[in-house]
Amino acid sequence: MTAASLPTIKFLQQPTSAAWIEQAIAHLDTILLDHSHCERKAAGVALNLIFRYPSSSKLVRTLTAIAQEELEHFEQVNQWLDRRGIALAPLSAPPYAAGLKAEIRRSEPERMLDSLLVSGLIEARSHERLGLLALHCPDPELAQFYRGLMASEARHYGIYWTLATTYFERTDVGQRLEQLAAVESELLATLYPEPRIHS
Amino acid sequence: MTAASLPTIKFLQQPTSAAWIEQAIAHLDTILLDHSHCERKAAGVALNLIFRYPSSSKLVRTLTAIAQEELEHFEQVNQWLDRRGIALAPLSAPPYAAGLKAEIRRSEPERMLDSLLVSGLIEARSHERLGLLALHCPDPELAQFYRGLMASEARHYGIYWTLATTYFERTDVGQRLEQLAAVESELLATLYPEPRIHS
Repeated sequence: MTAASLPTIKFLQQPTSAAWIEQAIAHLDTILLDHSHCERKAAGVALNLIFRYPSSSKLVRTLTAIAQEELEHFEQVNQWLDRRGIALAPLSAPPYAAGLKAEIRRSEPERMLDSLLVSGLIEARSHERLGLLALHCPDPELAQFYRGLMASEARHYGIYWTLATTYFERTDVGQRLEQLAAVESELLATLYPEPRIHS
Repeated sequence: MTAASLPTIKFLQQPTSAAWIEQAIAHLDTILLDHSHCERKAAGVALNLIFRYPSSSKLVRTLTAIAQEELEHFEQVNQWLDRRGIALAPLSAPPYAAGLKAEIRRSEPERMLDSLLVSGLIEARSHERLGLLALHCPDPELAQFYRGLMASEARHYGIYWTLATTYFERTDVGQRLEQLAAVESELLATLYPEPRIHS
């Protein structure tokens, strides 16, 4: 089983390891529960950016659409949990998101640029990993579900990138993305022992 | 012009004053902008409750639907702003929501009960006031928009009430609602000088 079965996702410096796929497939119920939390958090992040930049109309418009879509996915994943008899429950977060958040510079306008790029990177990684689940998941219906999500999620990291280039110079965006993408890959270089979407 | 032209909304101890209607109709653009913030905040509050009570499946399911609906309204109000040439912008909040939030007890399970009832009260008041705007707004298309929102928002305060009675004894819910509703009406007894949905 190799992670190289999917084309490389733009934005990501390192592809997901085969070790993650094995861990995820061996703990699909936990991965589904964590996925529910990820969708909920993604909606929350989009909404927080709308709260923080209420005058940036393009950001408000596009992130409203993203938040709506994440909430739809959240609902769909919860239906899958219900179907498999997995109770909704809290789940400890892996160090991934906190590690990326720590890279967000505190002062504006850098904070806005970093926030958009960190969200874009998380979306890109989620997109890659849902694709791997679609490819390797032994339950064909669940695999189909992951494929469906991927198709609509594929746009999200592009949207965050486009927003970044709307408010910032393209070369600045590219340079900063490269730095953050290096951190992102580094954070996933060692597999987190608990199975998670971003372990 | 009297506020008595609408049937009394269950939950609310005092109807909205004629002074608020006059203030709102005289500053419809500001009311629209504030309305946009209210819809965004309502989505945020529903999402925060989902974050806080991730294991309460009925709460998660119904509040996901509410958050989605509030985001749709947020988008619709923003389209109205665009149509009237009003730029998205931050707006200072009246003391209303902070005053209600201060009543939420800090320890569980009281915190959950109070949070649901405060949200229910805010929804009930919003429902009443959007109804008054529908009745008094001089722009027939905008009035129609308010009527449309009302129709779908009418359920929200009922949903928060139903959730409260799902997790708590009906008599406890009724008693606490009465206390919070008294505070809610008191907070609106003096008209806030800046025109707001909850001034």
